[in-house]
Amino acid sequence: MELPQRVTIYEVGARDGLQNEEAIVPVEVKAEFLGRLADAGLTTIEATSFVHPKWVPQLADAARLLEITERRPGVNYPVLVPNERGLDRALESGVEEIAIFGSATETFARKNLNRSMDEQYAMFAPTVERALAAGLRVRAYLSMCFGDPWEGAVPVGQVVAAGRRLLEMGCYQLSLGDTIGVGTAGHVQELIAAFGGPSRLAVHFHDTYGQALANTLAALQSGVTTVDASAGGLGGCPYAESATGNLATEDLVWMLDGLGIEHGVDLDALVTTSVWMAERLGRPSPSRVVTARSPK
Amino acid sequence: MELPQRVTIYEVGARDGLQNEEAIVPVEVKAEFLGRLADAGLTTIEATSFVHPKWVPQLADAARLLEITERRPGVNYPVLVPNERGLDRALESGVEEIAIFGSATETFARKNLNRSMDEQYAMFAPTVERALAAGLRVRAYLSMCFGDPWEGAVPVGQVVAAGRRLLEMGCYQLSLGDTIGVGTAGHVQELIAAFGGPSRLAVHFHDTYGQALANTLAALQSGVTTVDASAGGLGGCPYAESATGNLATEDLVWMLDGLGIEHGVDLDALVTTSVWMAERLGRPSPSRVVTARSPK
Repeated sequence: MELPQRVTIYEVGARDGLQNEEAIVPVEVKAEFLGRLADAGLTTIEATSFVHPKWVPQLADAARLLEITERRPGVNYPVLVPNERGLDRALESGVEEIAIFGSATETFARKNLNRSMDEQYAMFAPTVERALAAGLRVRAYLSMCFGDPWEGAVPVGQVVAAGRRLLEMGCYQLSLGDTIGVGTAGHVQELIAAFGGPSRLAVHFHDTYGQALANTLAALQSGVTTVDASAGGLGGCPYAESATGNLATEDLVWMLDGLGIEHGVDLDALVTTSVWMAERLGRPSPSRVVTARSPK
Repeated sequence: MELPQRVTIYEVGARDGLQNEEAIVPVEVKAEFLGRLADAGLTTIEATSFVHPKWVPQLADAARLLEITERRPGVNYPVLVPNERGLDRALESGVEEIAIFGSATETFARKNLNRSMDEQYAMFAPTVERALAAGLRVRAYLSMCFGDPWEGAVPVGQVVAAGRRLLEMGCYQLSLGDTIGVGTAGHVQELIAAFGGPSRLAVHFHDTYGQALANTLAALQSGVTTVDASAGGLGGCPYAESATGNLATEDLVWMLDGLGIEHGVDLDALVTTSVWMAERLGRPSPSRVVTARSPK
């Protein structure tokens, strides 16, 4: 089995996780969470989102969170930014990396961004341009890369075309999102091949259909070296269809350890952190590793 | 990705699933369950166990279940049998296939069978010999093929030696069990290679650490064409460490469908069956696909 020697875990629990939890977590708890994730060895930790608080009230405290969070040397704290207004707020908070989020389908672009696909590029282009001019790194997410709840299976060529538009703006990385979790391993490898290989690609899988880790293995076999994951599986509950169902970082780390792939994360410290956060949210973590390793 | 064209799903929900559920299910419900599994297209359905009822009270109704179950043409209904006494009972019930269950480690042989590894072979040998003489097919399970709670990591050579002993008795298939779910994809491929390839091997993964489906993908890539799985993930609850955590048949079927691998199972009928059984057990199915596809 051909596999990379080292993988970068792009930790999304504090943003993609908490924005999909019902509970609104106090800003001090979020700051402690970010500190614990860094203590556990994670070096890329998406901190929050500058989407308008009307849409994501869970992360309305973005500026305050960045103000009170001690940012560690050697750790990246990207933040989600939808547009120029969000970029302004992110710049005021002194961020060094932003992430934009596009859609691979017309329907989801309308539903999530209230724009056509062409209009989403028009919104992102000046945002990315200004961010790069300010010396920021810019990452791009692409949603609905495998299936779309309204459009069904999404053609690989359509995903590649949309992803290239974002990369050509100057994004350093494109994270291919299986937003509804329907993709399977062969589809993953087909999509990566259609991009001409893994260069500048990351993967972002949801476990809605139980496929997230198998799909990750397929992506690693295709040479991908950045994997998005959420500490404790934050943002998803196995008993709710509406769940985002992010791949749990601990389950990923367990597999990487077994495969002898370096990642830099201390599993015990991460499990302790996820147990701590689960207590704050008042429900158990859906991560299998966290469940198996939790003190009883 | 090199993959088999067709996979046989060896359905263990009625036996391995129900024997690990707290609730004791009425025999009529079990019979209906077996009928529904066959209706859904499963052709190998482990029905029950002739282990002494003292050890597995959940399946004390084995003889009665086989008496009232309509056995469909073209469907195999293997039953678990530990020894000659169990074989006698199975023969009285007119079974055509039995499964024996050995351990790859000394400690688990002692804990599960109250025997040393050598003594387990001595127990199985006359059982298998008599079963074969009676025209039955015999399958062998091998437990603790990856890790053991008392002994830690289990050396591949030790597993191969134990597995060969069972195959040499005349078992048509050896199911490699990751009883505590700690194995990862590379270990799976290493073990299959150590057996000299996938011939006569099946795999039996538990999702305790979230690895079951990724490990299955790795086994398919190594050429394995029989995969054990449990309808609705019966026998495991994601919120309990003690959970067996069998791979859910539905999650496996979703992956096989995506990979274009034939299996003969009607996913919708299977999900309906697992929802029905979850209602009887009074708790939701841990299968992600069942959760995503359940009527709300």
